[in-house]
Amino acid sequence: MTTAVVWLGGLTGSTPAQMAPSDPLPSWNDGATKQAIVEFVSRVTTTDSPDFVPVEDRIATFDNDGTLWAEQPVVQGMFVLARLKEMAAADPSLNQRQPFQAALTGDVEYFKQAGEEAIMELLAATHANMTQEQFEQEVRSFFETGVHPTLGVPYTQVTYKPMVELLEYLRANEFQTWICSGGGIDFMRVISQQFYGIPPQQVIGSSIKTEFIEQDGKATIWRLPELGRNNDKTGKPVGIDLHIGKRPVFAAGNERSGGDIAMLTYSQGRPGASFQLLINHDDAQREFAYQESDNASLNAAQTNGWNVVSIKNDWKQVF
Amino acid sequence: MTTAVVWLGGLTGSTPAQMAPSDPLPSWNDGATKQAIVEFVSRVTTTDSPDFVPVEDRIATFDNDGTLWAEQPVVQGMFVLARLKEMAAADPSLNQRQPFQAALTGDVEYFKQAGEEAIMELLAATHANMTQEQFEQEVRSFFETGVHPTLGVPYTQVTYKPMVELLEYLRANEFQTWICSGGGIDFMRVISQQFYGIPPQQVIGSSIKTEFIEQDGKATIWRLPELGRNNDKTGKPVGIDLHIGKRPVFAAGNERSGGDIAMLTYSQGRPGASFQLLINHDDAQREFAYQESDNASLNAAQTNGWNVVSIKNDWKQVF
Repeated sequence: MTTAVVWLGGLTGSTPAQMAPSDPLPSWNDGATKQAIVEFVSRVTTTDSPDFVPVEDRIATFDNDGTLWAEQPVVQGMFVLARLKEMAAADPSLNQRQPFQAALTGDVEYFKQAGEEAIMELLAATHANMTQEQFEQEVRSFFETGVHPTLGVPYTQVTYKPMVELLEYLRANEFQTWICSGGGIDFMRVISQQFYGIPPQQVIGSSIKTEFIEQDGKATIWRLPELGRNNDKTGKPVGIDLHIGKRPVFAAGNERSGGDIAMLTYSQGRPGASFQLLINHDDAQREFAYQESDNASLNAAQTNGWNVVSIKNDWKQVF
Repeated sequence: MTTAVVWLGGLTGSTPAQMAPSDPLPSWNDGATKQAIVEFVSRVTTTDSPDFVPVEDRIATFDNDGTLWAEQPVVQGMFVLARLKEMAAADPSLNQRQPFQAALTGDVEYFKQAGEEAIMELLAATHANMTQEQFEQEVRSFFETGVHPTLGVPYTQVTYKPMVELLEYLRANEFQTWICSGGGIDFMRVISQQFYGIPPQQVIGSSIKTEFIEQDGKATIWRLPELGRNNDKTGKPVGIDLHIGKRPVFAAGNERSGGDIAMLTYSQGRPGASFQLLINHDDAQREFAYQESDNASLNAAQTNGWNVVSIKNDWKQVF
């Protein structure tokens, strides 16, 4: 391709636009980060490169909240609120009962006092005591009608365009793309194919316990009001090991809570080439600007030589 | 293809051998079971069929022990024994210490008395308190040198040829093939690609708990001496739901302990076409003959219309 472009360029006196190799990452500004991504992918997919990675090892894992879509507020939190409102409409006594009252009125102080038990009660009420099929239907309904509270658009439009391009670019280079998120595994699976081109079996997330039951003569999976696995922080490498069984060659996360440090460290520990990407939310104009109080993620990126995305500088377009 | 064969057949007076559609299941005898498999696959992959299943839903799950390879004795049990022998060679005091003594001398009565705790101690000694990489290396070593105790061949040769053909046939028809076994997930992952063409991320099995650690400056997964999830019986649909998030269109297991009844029931509960296969070990000459005391698996097959493989009658070749 390159040869043909050069040759035709010489012939016509300029590079014809229709012959230029199309940019696989058009929503990224040209710069060090984009260049590092393209160079890495080229390096690990070139058969005679010392860093060549065989196709079966081309595993890429992506955090979701703040990495693939906006997390201000966290979308699954909006789902919980929407479900609680529906439940309160059907049973108004919930408006006077804690922890529902606090959740419905946005009483953050209540949850600071009441702690994890109150959160678990909300989780149980909105995520458990139903079949897997019922839960999936509720998530689908939420996404069909839900609108982002501040951006004012359907949730399909709060995914980051540059990151969706990156997923497609990696897949075009025979990477298998995975989500590895602290969010609920069954929540994300409903939309992962439509939003990101990632099938449900390539989604790793936090889970509640389930059991196999036969109900009205039909065998199904029942969702129990009990936490299974927390797929955040050091839970992420554990989740990757459980679901994939090999270290990711490419891992991407974002700063906010230090949630992706362990996953990126685990990826970097693989023998052979690997790439770590950390998104810095520094664009208050086009998205949101927020930092960690201890700056742990950006410090780890600095120490370990991870590639930092500045949304402000690296992304031509955000959504 | 069919048209060309008929046409050439007419021309030459017989169907030329080189034009005959090649048999995708040559180790299966022609008969009801083989015919049912081929008809089902044709039905769900024909776009204008009412039973058409889109590629993304073509999930096939296979039990391993007794379904993909011989389970007399269970291979992972032989791994435990081999590890214990190595450990006893390094530390002869194990020969006088329970439960190691009982395991090393084949004292089945001891385990009937000592129960699950003794089994867990053996599991901890052979499967835990090491990194994931160390465990994988030990499994690899076992398969490099191990020989089946009664068949006298390497374990590569105790896989069932008809079932490996079936896996390949399904993949050729764009099914994604998975293992869903009561065996250890990390044990099977070491050989799943080589033995069955199934990558590690498509293996579901029983697991012990793990944690993420940083050891000598290297981040890794540490295996804890504690059971995580038991992927047998009703644990199988739970495992499929956790790892795949959708019901299998095709599910295969075998009779011995009732271990696959729940998985096959779960598969059959999907809306739309599905296929359940249950292997009956009825061939004492070429393999092993064994039945369940309560006949539960074969009874369930009868009640639910599952397809039963008679090894004696349906398989032209076993290994």
